[in-house]
Amino acid sequence: MTPTPTTGPADAAAPPLGHDRARERAELLVEVLPYIQRFRGRTVVVKYGGNAMTDTTLAGQFATDMVLLRSVGMRPVVVHGGGPQIGELMSRLGMEPEFRDGLRVTDADTLDVARMVLVGKVNREIVSAINMHGPLAVGVSGQDAGLITAAPRDPSLGFVGDVSQVNPVIVERLLAEDLIPVVSTIGSDEAGQAYNINADTVAGAVAAALGAEKIVYLSDVEGLLADVHDPASLVRRTTVDDLEAQLASGRVQGGMIPKLTACIDAVRRGVASAHILDGRVPHVVLLEIFTDEGIGTMITDTREGDR
Amino acid sequence: MTPTPTTGPADAAAPPLGHDRARERAELLVEVLPYIQRFRGRTVVVKYGGNAMTDTTLAGQFATDMVLLRSVGMRPVVVHGGGPQIGELMSRLGMEPEFRDGLRVTDADTLDVARMVLVGKVNREIVSAINMHGPLAVGVSGQDAGLITAAPRDPSLGFVGDVSQVNPVIVERLLAEDLIPVVSTIGSDEAGQAYNINADTVAGAVAAALGAEKIVYLSDVEGLLADVHDPASLVRRTTVDDLEAQLASGRVQGGMIPKLTACIDAVRRGVASAHILDGRVPHVVLLEIFTDEGIGTMITDTREGDR
Amino acid sequence: MTPTPTTGPADAAAPPLGHDRARERAELLVEVLPYIQRFRGRTVVVKYGGNAMTDTTLAGQFATDMVLLRSVGMRPVVVHGGGPQIGELMSRLGMEPEFRDGLRVTDADTLDVARMVLVGKVNREIVSAINMHGPLAVGVSGQDAGLITAAPRDPSLGFVGDVSQVNPVIVERLLAEDLIPVVSTIGSDEAGQAYNINADTVAGAVAAALGAEKIVYLSDVEGLLADVHDPASLVRRTTVDDLEAQLASGRVQGGMIPKLTACIDAVRRGVASAHILDGRVPHVVLLEIFTDEGIGTMITDTREGDR
Amino acid sequence: MTPTPTTGPADAAAPPLGHDRARERAELLVEVLPYIQRFRGRTVVVKYGGNAMTDTTLAGQFATDMVLLRSVGMRPVVVHGGGPQIGELMSRLGMEPEFRDGLRVTDADTLDVARMVLVGKVNREIVSAINMHGPLAVGVSGQDAGLITAAPRDPSLGFVGDVSQVNPVIVERLLAEDLIPVVSTIGSDEAGQAYNINADTVAGAVAAALGAEKIVYLSDVEGLLADVHDPASLVRRTTVDDLEAQLASGRVQGGMIPKLTACIDAVRRGVASAHILDGRVPHVVLLEIFTDEGIGTMITDTREGDR
Amino acid sequence: MTPTPTTGPADAAAPPLGHDRARERAELLVEVLPYIQRFRGRTVVVKYGGNAMTDTTLAGQFATDMVLLRSVGMRPVVVHGGGPQIGELMSRLGMEPEFRDGLRVTDADTLDVARMVLVGKVNREIVSAINMHGPLAVGVSGQDAGLITAAPRDPSLGFVGDVSQVNPVIVERLLAEDLIPVVSTIGSDEAGQAYNINADTVAGAVAAALGAEKIVYLSDVEGLLADVHDPASLVRRTTVDDLEAQLASGRVQGGMIPKLTACIDAVRRGVASAHILDGRVPHVVLLEIFTDEGIGTMITDTREGDR
Amino acid sequence: MTPTPTTGPADAAAPPLGHDRARERAELLVEVLPYIQRFRGRTVVVKYGGNAMTDTTLAGQFATDMVLLRSVGMRPVVVHGGGPQIGELMSRLGMEPEFRDGLRVTDADTLDVARMVLVGKVNREIVSAINMHGPLAVGVSGQDAGLITAAPRDPSLGFVGDVSQVNPVIVERLLAEDLIPVVSTIGSDEAGQAYNINADTVAGAVAAALGAEKIVYLSDVEGLLADVHDPASLVRRTTVDDLEAQLASGRVQGGMIPKLTACIDAVRRGVASAHILDGRVPHVVLLEIFTDEGIGTMITDTREGDR
Repeated sequence: MTPTPTTGPADAAAPPLGHDRARERAELLVEVLPYIQRFRGRTVVVKYGGNAMTDTTLAGQFATDMVLLRSVGMRPVVVHGGGPQIGELMSRLGMEPEFRDGLRVTDADTLDVARMVLVGKVNREIVSAINMHGPLAVGVSGQDAGLITAAPRDPSLGFVGDVSQVNPVIVERLLAEDLIPVVSTIGSDEAGQAYNINADTVAGAVAAALGAEKIVYLSDVEGLLADVHDPASLVRRTTVDDLEAQLASGRVQGGMIPKLTACIDAVRRGVASAHILDGRVPHVVLLEIFTDEGIGTMITDTREGDR
Repeated sequence: MTPTPTTGPADAAAPPLGHDRARERAELLVEVLPYIQRFRGRTVVVKYGGNAMTDTTLAGQFATDMVLLRSVGMRPVVVHGGGPQIGELMSRLGMEPEFRDGLRVTDADTLDVARMVLVGKVNREIVSAINMHGPLAVGVSGQDAGLITAAPRDPSLGFVGDVSQVNPVIVERLLAEDLIPVVSTIGSDEAGQAYNINADTVAGAVAAALGAEKIVYLSDVEGLLADVHDPASLVRRTTVDDLEAQLASGRVQGGMIPKLTACIDAVRRGVASAHILDGRVPHVVLLEIFTDEGIGTMITDTREGDR
Repeated sequence: MTPTPTTGPADAAAPPLGHDRARERAELLVEVLPYIQRFRGRTVVVKYGGNAMTDTTLAGQFATDMVLLRSVGMRPVVVHGGGPQIGELMSRLGMEPEFRDGLRVTDADTLDVARMVLVGKVNREIVSAINMHGPLAVGVSGQDAGLITAAPRDPSLGFVGDVSQVNPVIVERLLAEDLIPVVSTIGSDEAGQAYNINADTVAGAVAAALGAEKIVYLSDVEGLLADVHDPASLVRRTTVDDLEAQLASGRVQGGMIPKLTACIDAVRRGVASAHILDGRVPHVVLLEIFTDEGIGTMITDTREGDR
Repeated sequence: MTPTPTTGPADAAAPPLGHDRARERAELLVEVLPYIQRFRGRTVVVKYGGNAMTDTTLAGQFATDMVLLRSVGMRPVVVHGGGPQIGELMSRLGMEPEFRDGLRVTDADTLDVARMVLVGKVNREIVSAINMHGPLAVGVSGQDAGLITAAPRDPSLGFVGDVSQVNPVIVERLLAEDLIPVVSTIGSDEAGQAYNINADTVAGAVAAALGAEKIVYLSDVEGLLADVHDPASLVRRTTVDDLEAQLASGRVQGGMIPKLTACIDAVRRGVASAHILDGRVPHVVLLEIFTDEGIGTMITDTREGDR
Repeated sequence: MTPTPTTGPADAAAPPLGHDRARERAELLVEVLPYIQRFRGRTVVVKYGGNAMTDTTLAGQFATDMVLLRSVGMRPVVVHGGGPQIGELMSRLGMEPEFRDGLRVTDADTLDVARMVLVGKVNREIVSAINMHGPLAVGVSGQDAGLITAAPRDPSLGFVGDVSQVNPVIVERLLAEDLIPVVSTIGSDEAGQAYNINADTVAGAVAAALGAEKIVYLSDVEGLLADVHDPASLVRRTTVDDLEAQLASGRVQGGMIPKLTACIDAVRRGVASAHILDGRVPHVVLLEIFTDEGIGTMITDTREGDR
Repeated sequence: MTPTPTTGPADAAAPPLGHDRARERAELLVEVLPYIQRFRGRTVVVKYGGNAMTDTTLAGQFATDMVLLRSVGMRPVVVHGGGPQIGELMSRLGMEPEFRDGLRVTDADTLDVARMVLVGKVNREIVSAINMHGPLAVGVSGQDAGLITAAPRDPSLGFVGDVSQVNPVIVERLLAEDLIPVVSTIGSDEAGQAYNINADTVAGAVAAALGAEKIVYLSDVEGLLADVHDPASLVRRTTVDDLEAQLASGRVQGGMIPKLTACIDAVRRGVASAHILDGRVPHVVLLEIFTDEGIGTMITDTREGDR
């Protein structure tokens, strides 16, 4: 997968814009000014995965979006997973995946593969795609400088971990240098043993530790659906209290559970809003940040405030 | 003159964008990214005047443009004149203006009026218009903290001055605080005597002293015309050498002379490019900065490089 | 009005001091040392107006005093009004002033004139007079960088405002650069509308926001008089409680009311002492700061402490 | 491979030191003081590989040595390769390695495997081993923040690169935070294409760019041998001029060539000394730094100076 | 007394270490790493006196130890007394010492002698001994920059003082410059009158004011003895509560009283541990800091924690 | 010698100033303003000694003068000798002074006495006298932090040294903290051996190393006399060239030689002016700095410039 850059360098030969198009461009800039002013200096953590990561065009657009956020003064942080890519290498190596309650049982060899894929392949591709716009991204793993301390989730799952502590200093230093940190979700316990941790969970914990303004999840659905079989039932805005009731009701299923749990945790710990967006929509992060009505599902502490 | 703000605050009630319009907005942002990256952290001095200053709508758009440049990481500095406004107050006061070679003969009373109008009226209106977007602009006069040291141009003209030295520290400090300096062109000689100085000249000298990337002049014509009677003869790009030849030829006339002289000086002293734009075109500064083909006339040291 | 500098540069040809005079100078320096040590690094806000501003000699002496305070390590801030000067220009323009309860009814045109006079004339003259000693003063208006947020006082008065908030960052930055801020008292409401505000009130609010050590009012009387008709009845020291009682009694009249109210507010909000001095006395600010017994009226929170 | 930590935490239960042993410890410390003082604040780049990396015990000792250098005030930087580990994963994946002139022909799939192994496995194991002593190490790849710009070596080799530029800012920032950078040698060209680069070459280029005091190569031989078949012919000290003569003579062979070339380059560009050490000797880096006589081969600009 | 440096400069001609000795050196370094890591950046105040100060060899070793602590990242502060040296000069001058309750009665002349000896002789010798390793030590007296404010202990004792306040700014500034402060225990009262103060007391007060990790007293006994006549009765560890009981019991005598009192005060005010060590043992401070079992007597708040 | 403070604290009960005296005080302040402005931020090194040091009243006045210079923004540094005080203690100890060519032959015991007197007595008295005005002074010896590296002057003189190098960092740090360094002139050679150095020489070398504006010598004569027997022959201003000629002529004698030599060296190395003043005149340093005509002898590079 080599992402296609969606913007050429400014000095590339390009057909001149027509006069109308130039004027439209100026007007667009004026329209987005209030959004730039509102989010200037704010940290936005984006959990990146799914189609947005595997589709070459979408991946290039995502990289551009991250560079754009930074260029107008925001501080984006990317957190990524990579389950399918892990499965793919295991399959090439003839290893048999084993799942228990939807979680991959992770022995030492599987952990080794997971780490290679996440840190050495997926992270690298994201960093490369961003750095086509300049030397902006730096890959970080949860093991670097003690970023993520892990604890085993359940002995029967092997090296599957939970976040027990986040020390965000290394990420803050990179942000202070105007760099874009790209985080792989391998953590260590106190004894140095590595663990693979659910990326949705890590993203929320990192957002809380950084005092982020927003945590954004890119998924392969439009957002949270009131009725999972009805795309028209998109919940455009909800609160953490409502979400908790819904989780307690048992109606939410599958991969949406860790996402929603992480959203609730992050908002409860001070992140202003959490978002579940459809990563299949081009530039969906920009659509969320640079429009009043936003897109997808927005989760806040109370019903008050904008949107 | 009360400028009309062209952007409302982001939380104002606005009709939702249609889906297409939102997508278009995202795409236009991606298009301008290379320009934002190119000019990030660069200083742009804008000489403001003419219709762009007296037309209420254009004035509001200009203020928005300055805020926008700053919001995407550039460092705009506004330098303004105000001849017509000075004439207007003199007329209300029953004072008879006297010109010699196109320069206003400036006695003590005229100087007093000029200073009141420039510092106390024109500068204030620009600051107010910018500050409708937030507490961003600060008015500065050439007398503040020794910014502009003046020397008399010609005894018979009274208190009409030339720039003998620029001490840009106060402007640099304001830029370092992410503020937008708005400069009135009254300077002082060593003995504290005030002088009114041509704003075109001051703008160029300030740009050179700041090591600016661009100096932009807003005029009431499309740019430099090869044939002053033929709007179709717009010179889109030229060099300082060519311009000097042209000035020497005597074909250039009127208010264009100090502008071109200031452009040549600024470029010779390290400003990357000078621009003469049509201030009657809405958002003309954005059109120059955020398009490859630019607008108006661009003056550089050599013919090489972009555009 | 061009203030006469009262100190020539040190290298000017001067008759040699006699031996006795030189010795006296050394001894006087030693005498003032304790005062310099006591006020080093402290902020002193001076409300400047009245005769001290209109008399050329006094104006030059005042400028020298401000430079002197700064030179021995204090941080002076000048706040000025300019009612008579506003009236003068209105009269030249044939405008009819209208007062209601002692306050000038201020329509848009009057506001325009007030702003021109305050920011473009009075402020400039103060800055010029100070800068004859070096590039030290910077003019600031309440509209610059959001310094003073105003609210309308009474709809029937037009654009006459009250201070609703002070954001002293711009003044603090200038002080940190060892500059002398000179503040004009035009503020803005949230919508960018300018208002003319009573300078006595602004001075007190700015002193409180800066955590100043002293707020000093220069008036055209000796200080607060117990009996307004008896100059011998000067109150040399009083407390805010006593002053409030006196204001409640209705015996205080005219322009002294906003001064005393501002003094009370400033002291209640942490300014160590407020002073009402006779601006007609040469170097009266120095007399207050560099003598134990002071001069004029001093207002503190309690009766304890020096003087 | 999980390195065994060679030092337990200080609070672990340990048998008490005998009196003699304690005294010996104090004396040892006194002996090493001059070395600590000499190298305080100096940067030492260590190219890590070979047996020292694959032997579990040696790997743990190496990690301890890096922590020790940092703890006494030096600034170690680790640069690593991983050829055998790349070969191992390729073999597990049934990929056929192809070599030309000793260099691995690297197609897109091979590059992918190389990057996964270097960044996602070898780098991670080094970081983990160091971080058993605390949150000290941070993995960095040549693609992060534009650290290493690569150029293709030879079209027929595919994605095998040479170093065309080093931008050491990210490494300097990590050093300034008292962290230990661990560098994987994947670089990017201007278009974002990744390349695998010889780690010996990268280590020398990084040392030069950082203005390092020492560049240290850990190999599987005792050092440079005058007669490659005679271990007793160890060259203890030589100069870049002598080395160049020797390289020109054609007597040096195999993997020693890029090491020596990199040593010469680094010393020519200002690194004070280059060292080829036997990575099979426990704590060999400490033996070099903390003794006068050193160990292995030392290469300097001239014959003068210590050792 | 001229201390003998115990370490020569690293470049001095030295016989080569045998291979075994070099290896031993590396291993010992690895052993001390956990101690270096534990105390990095921590402040250690050492009260220096007794045999360790008068024996030339021990004095040189002590200086080396202080340089070593600093070289591995600790922040040592030396506080010294000098009773015997004061007595010696008094005797040379034919002055008759007079003691009351073990305290020297100190008239103006005695104070003069004490100050000369402490500041001008003892302090200088310590500074000189340390600076043989480089320009590291700076002598400071309690009168410098208001470090120690003194109060008279008892009028009948003359200028014998107690510590009434410590202003540690000057010491902190020197530590921030990586220097080693050496403190003489002469303080001043508010009126500038000097007092000689017990050095044990000053050391504890300075340690508390600095938030030190350890306060270490070098004495001429092995530590605190349960039975003062039985060297085998050494108390290896105790708490401040136990010590207070013991002091109350009256069994502690002589110079040990101010030491223990100062230890209790320092620990009660936040110093993690206080130590009474035998200054006659070479490198005794290193033995305490770089071994688990320590040496001498250790006093902490509770019985918990390491040792 | 206990200096009498010449200024009481400002809050002491004092008889009120008469009105005339207060006005005179204000005028005096205005007169000295240009001098304060001229020397703000400049370093002034004062060599202190002679009557000004031994006369109690003069000593107190000198301390006040140093505090005053600092209070108006200058940076005074005091360098002192103490020959007579050394002689006095030697005499009390029954030691026989021996002079050769006017220099004290200094064996180890004499050096010990010299150091005690200079560092432990004279320096302390100066620090105490200054600190009666606040915690402002810090004593420094040439041995602290490597301030002065000494070389032996002549083997037959013993430990009499010359300045071979000045490392002014410790003095600069104290000045940066707004403290007043008081320097004793004991230096060390590379091996840590102390030397007593002529204070006039040290003062000049320190002034040059600090890039001082002025070096001021307090002597017991009016200045440099053209005819040493005629007080009326005072040389008010001269140049280094003239002085060198005069020294070569052999007419200058005694203690004036090292002073003049040090003046020449300092001015040649960039100090703007050197001064020889009569320390018997109260506040003589103030008379020099705060008058145009100055006092005593002024030495500059050329005849141009003020005075």
